[in-house]
Amino acid sequence: MASGPDFEQIRQARERIAPYVYRTPVLRSASLDRASGARLFFKCENFQRTGSFKIRGATNAIYSLGEGIASRGVVTHSSGNHGAAVAYAARGRHIPAWVVVPENAPEIKRRAIADFGAEIVTSKPTLDSRESAAREILDRTGATLIHPYDDDRIIAGQATATVELIEEAGELDYIFAPVSGGGLLSGTAIAAQSLQPRIRIVGCEPARADDAFRSLKSGHLEKNVTADTIADGLRASLAERTFAILRERLDRIILVEESEIIAAMRLVWERMKIIIEPSSAVPVAAAISGKLDLSGRRVGIVLSGGNVDLARFFDS
Amino acid sequence: MASGPDFEQIRQARERIAPYVYRTPVLRSASLDRASGARLFFKCENFQRTGSFKIRGATNAIYSLGEGIASRGVVTHSSGNHGAAVAYAARGRHIPAWVVVPENAPEIKRRAIADFGAEIVTSKPTLDSRESAAREILDRTGATLIHPYDDDRIIAGQATATVELIEEAGELDYIFAPVSGGGLLSGTAIAAQSLQPRIRIVGCEPARADDAFRSLKSGHLEKNVTADTIADGLRASLAERTFAILRERLDRIILVEESEIIAAMRLVWERMKIIIEPSSAVPVAAAISGKLDLSGRRVGIVLSGGNVDLARFFDS
Repeated sequence: MASGPDFEQIRQARERIAPYVYRTPVLRSASLDRASGARLFFKCENFQRTGSFKIRGATNAIYSLGEGIASRGVVTHSSGNHGAAVAYAARGRHIPAWVVVPENAPEIKRRAIADFGAEIVTSKPTLDSRESAAREILDRTGATLIHPYDDDRIIAGQATATVELIEEAGELDYIFAPVSGGGLLSGTAIAAQSLQPRIRIVGCEPARADDAFRSLKSGHLEKNVTADTIADGLRASLAERTFAILRERLDRIILVEESEIIAAMRLVWERMKIIIEPSSAVPVAAAISGKLDLSGRRVGIVLSGGNVDLARFFDS
Repeated sequence: MASGPDFEQIRQARERIAPYVYRTPVLRSASLDRASGARLFFKCENFQRTGSFKIRGATNAIYSLGEGIASRGVVTHSSGNHGAAVAYAARGRHIPAWVVVPENAPEIKRRAIADFGAEIVTSKPTLDSRESAAREILDRTGATLIHPYDDDRIIAGQATATVELIEEAGELDYIFAPVSGGGLLSGTAIAAQSLQPRIRIVGCEPARADDAFRSLKSGHLEKNVTADTIADGLRASLAERTFAILRERLDRIILVEESEIIAAMRLVWERMKIIIEPSSAVPVAAAISGKLDLSGRRVGIVLSGGNVDLARFFDS
């Protein structure tokens, strides 16, 4: 029996979140086609509300809650795109949100979350401290935890990006998407293979945070001990739930080095004139790496987000 | 009798260039709507081939030439987007191109032109030296000069962007476009007013290169003595031809300061996640400046290009 949400749950998620998220465009690029040898279809979640795909899952999870439960609010302990997405979706539903942010998080991320009206709770930078801060809020308020990926409602929400991608691009040979905790990649795989059973799903991961690669190789859930990568959205490790889905469905994982991530990000900025964050550059780097021969193939690429601190360009 | 190309010439230009240029998207932005009070429709010529609208005019001019004339090649003395566009269009028609580039031009611009296969001729940085270098090539080769704006075929080509904008956006109250030599703005005005006679056209100009503003005020063609603006595409001065068109058709010119240009550029990068060059930020700055009350208005904005040297971000 297949793990994770089924296509009916993805269909429901799509209907539920439609009023609150954008249908983002699918872009082409002659330059990137040349660089990869393939025909690439870029699903531009960098243009999404809050600047990443995370709003899809957060909206689906938060709008799935019954009135009574919802009114007590929601909690998460992600300081990145998921934190901002939970804050945004909670504001849209007029319920309180608490976001646990480690004391060393960049000011720009803290501000994005606060701007969306969530209450920020500062913790030590360890996972332990973040989890216990979240637990304290849950106990005190009766709020609901919105996990960034270990949740079928989140996975079903993230999957909706791939449904739109395939509607626009038609038949695809591959989809490349980044992998961190595996929520986006799991949703991508379930949605794509429900619509086109022979499509191959390629997870793309920084070599410096390669827990998914190692987990699929060993057959056991492995963790990242360090995750010192510029792809700041890809530092988490798989959960049992997402590991089970990916074991069933993934074609392979391609690892990319830091220099490949930066070069791919620059190529997209320069040639496509769109701003993507380093995590989005990971599948682009994988597609142009030559590690998989894509000549003449039709390949979907999920550009997961566009949140980059531009101070370096504008304040220097 | 109206000056410049008529709508029939614009229609022909569109047909002529259609196989060689992109139909660029028209984007919306909730953030920029809030900042301006208007409903903004951004015509994204930053996504255009060669990274700017200039390819439209250059393609129309070059593909208008008869076989015999064309085979002798084309010359221009613009080191910026027009130079790259002429190089690209000439390569497409398999004819030689010479581009006069002043010795102090940035290496990145020189490389873009050379990558498109044009021959680069280096001159001193004065207009005099550039013009005499171009004349020498014309005399020697029998090639045709492709002027960046003082040419009805160029104006008709640039006008095609506005035809597409209006097809997508529908009825508009205003169109904001940048003004430099006036080719884009003239084409914008003719196309827009042919389709929607009551539409108002607003030229947007850096205060540090305000020749068009002064010319329209005095009624005489004024020149920029200096043009020390970050908007490197907007340093040229009007020609008699474009001045005549703009006198007939322009609602007004809005001047913006350097700090407004940079802030508008950053806002577009951060919120819309697209890369625009400083010249494109000039009409955005004008629209959010409050100098014209746009509350509830439907406003088209021509984002003219996206060619920015990203070394500052990636090499630091």
